[in-house]
Amino acid sequence: MKVYGTSVSGNCYKIKLLLHLLKIPYEWIETDTRKGETKTQEFLLKNPVGKVPLLELDSGEFLSESNAILYFLAKDTEFFPNDLLIQSRILQWMFFEQYSHEPYIAVNRWLIQFQNKKDDPKIQGNHAKGLDALRIMNDHLSANKFFGSQRPSISDISLFAYTHVAEEGHFPLSGFPNLSSWVERIREIPDFVPIY
Amino acid sequence: MKVYGTSVSGNCYKIKLLLHLLKIPYEWIETDTRKGETKTQEFLLKNPVGKVPLLELDSGEFLSESNAILYFLAKDTEFFPNDLLIQSRILQWMFFEQYSHEPYIAVNRWLIQFQNKKDDPKIQGNHAKGLDALRIMNDHLSANKFFGSQRPSISDISLFAYTHVAEEGHFPLSGFPNLSSWVERIREIPDFVPIY
Repeated sequence: MKVYGTSVSGNCYKIKLLLHLLKIPYEWIETDTRKGETKTQEFLLKNPVGKVPLLELDSGEFLSESNAILYFLAKDTEFFPNDLLIQSRILQWMFFEQYSHEPYIAVNRWLIQFQNKKDDPKIQGNHAKGLDALRIMNDHLSANKFFGSQRPSISDISLFAYTHVAEEGHFPLSGFPNLSSWVERIREIPDFVPIY
Repeated sequence: MKVYGTSVSGNCYKIKLLLHLLKIPYEWIETDTRKGETKTQEFLLKNPVGKVPLLELDSGEFLSESNAILYFLAKDTEFFPNDLLIQSRILQWMFFEQYSHEPYIAVNRWLIQFQNKKDDPKIQGNHAKGLDALRIMNDHLSANKFFGSQRPSISDISLFAYTHVAEEGHFPLSGFPNLSSWVERIREIPDFVPIY
């Protein structure tokens, strides 16, 4: 299978990380959003939403949305256990990631680290909401080792992608000790690969 | 089971609609975000994210995030067919809904219809992005009757919730004929219930 992705993107890194953890071979096709490569006519035929990551199956079919791709790859593996309530909680945290976490933590990292827009007026409001997300995660980890399941699942991979580089968007994890420990637990999973 | 929800919320309506389509009995506990009822100490113990809808199982356990609740209710039913690629496409559209649709279409409806904030500076930017989402959906429907599957699934229920009332946020569907036809197809599903 092929993965179209921007290497520095956390959403794209989710797919790379899970493919390595599952030892699935793949071809990475660097597609840089910063160069407009997801908005070309050719790419829009593959994904009309104009975003990466995008998975191309050997059949030629395409699948988009990072967390839907994680589901596709993880179903029937240890990263998506076969229990309805656990599966639903895993998805709960993945929808939390896309609605209440990524739009603030990933976007501020993007503006500050990759767009050199440290004075963008959106940053301050995003910062407050990003802190809310990190606090909710940190509180959850006071009684749980992982998100959604008792062992690492695709919700952890989803949340790890932007949380472990949150400092690049000026969200230091030093005030969230449970999150810092969880980041280390994820790094210890066999076959872990870093984003950079 | 119990559903905590704000009746006028599309996210909450998703759950009500699916429960009716599946003929599952439930108790609705009106919990109005506009009155701060999702931010009380008592409610935050049930859902630390402070949002509705929230599902309470007979076991006393809670599940949040509208689309995760749809998955929990629909798995092993006709609204989530047992085919990995179809399931993944259904989730793809549901993540699209939460990331690229709801934050613009639902938020403008909320500001205009329920908060009387017609001059909020966010509305204009949201409007352009909401139109993008509706255009992508309308284009998809030029070759498909539904989203994710060849028959109605939870991705349709998810996308229907705010699309069919998009006009309340000043997104008329008149320019999207495929969307208008799809809205009618959803309304024809047996046991359909309206939002109001």
